[in-house]
Amino acid sequence: MAEDNKAIAPWEVLDSTYNYSDRWLALRSDTVRLPNGRVLAPFHVIEQPDWVTAIALTRDGSIVLVEEYRHGAKQTVIELPCGVHDRPGEPLAAVQRELREETGFASDDWHPLGSFFANAPRMNNRVHCFLALDASKVAEPAPDDGEVIVPHEVPFAEFLADLQAGRRVLHGFQNGAMWLLLLYAKSSGDKRLAALLA
Amino acid sequence: MAEDNKAIAPWEVLDSTYNYSDRWLALRSDTVRLPNGRVLAPFHVIEQPDWVTAIALTRDGSIVLVEEYRHGAKQTVIELPCGVHDRPGEPLAAVQRELREETGFASDDWHPLGSFFANAPRMNNRVHCFLALDASKVAEPAPDDGEVIVPHEVPFAEFLADLQAGRRVLHGFQNGAMWLLLLYAKSSGDKRLAALLA
Repeated sequence: MAEDNKAIAPWEVLDSTYNYSDRWLALRSDTVRLPNGRVLAPFHVIEQPDWVTAIALTRDGSIVLVEEYRHGAKQTVIELPCGVHDRPGEPLAAVQRELREETGFASDDWHPLGSFFANAPRMNNRVHCFLALDASKVAEPAPDDGEVIVPHEVPFAEFLADLQAGRRVLHGFQNGAMWLLLLYAKSSGDKRLAALLA
Repeated sequence: MAEDNKAIAPWEVLDSTYNYSDRWLALRSDTVRLPNGRVLAPFHVIEQPDWVTAIALTRDGSIVLVEEYRHGAKQTVIELPCGVHDRPGEPLAAVQRELREETGFASDDWHPLGSFFANAPRMNNRVHCFLALDASKVAEPAPDDGEVIVPHEVPFAEFLADLQAGRRVLHGFQNGAMWLLLLYAKSSGDKRLAALLA
């Protein structure tokens, strides 16, 4: 396996301090010794729960998106449904709950697309990406009152054309979910994803 | 344009406190009022410099990767060259410098792949992604002494097959860079990227 040939040793942690911590995140600042002997301080790691995100496609060939104001970017965006995996249970249960709460959509045909570190240098959490096929609206959205969300349904081919033309831009890990979707489309050969390979 | 139809208003910031700040990052904790009247506190935003990342392909069809220990993930990984854009100048200059310092490779054929927010809910910074074609080794790597890096050259088709089979996994925004590379391969029709469309 390609990933087996690694020669670089882990950093040695000499000291570790939490500068901030609550239920949302912790800022851990370490003093570390590198394999070359150099001591770095502080090296910051953001500790957070894992995240989940859904690419949900409907029977009639649309993708389910959510419009939300995003305070980091200071922008209202229209992106993939996603959320924090901070309750007991599997990531699949978390993403199913997020999709249903944010959009009212559900599916009986879920596929894990894979997971990856949110940001390997700086964060300790992972992103779990899922595909929901033949999704349909089964309820009204019921976001918690800390979220203001407008669901959108966009023809999947139009969504892809918008990304291609730069009329839509997703943020970091959501582009990563699209990359994993492409890999899944290639390996599965699922015809409902044919627009991706066009 | 698809992104024009947005109805959700920005959050109103009632208070803003920095719980931590240095040259690497700041943890800003806001008290905000949502459009539905709900007040949230604290809502955390990590403020950081932008990031740059390079997909560098050589004349003989390899991709240039870097092996590094990543302290957030507590793993040694082999990934795309990337770095922080924290000096004056354009992102292109930053990514050219990072590639050269980390790997010794340079190119006269750079293409911007696009940029996106690193994490729109939680962070204020952007990731700028670039493609370098016909890259070649022009010097020995010269990482700063806070980095321990081993460059790798991997045949691009093998790299893609490894990602497809799950033998390699990139972290968050690097998968995003791969998605932007796919979009660029489709729009440019560049034959040097044909393996992506196979």
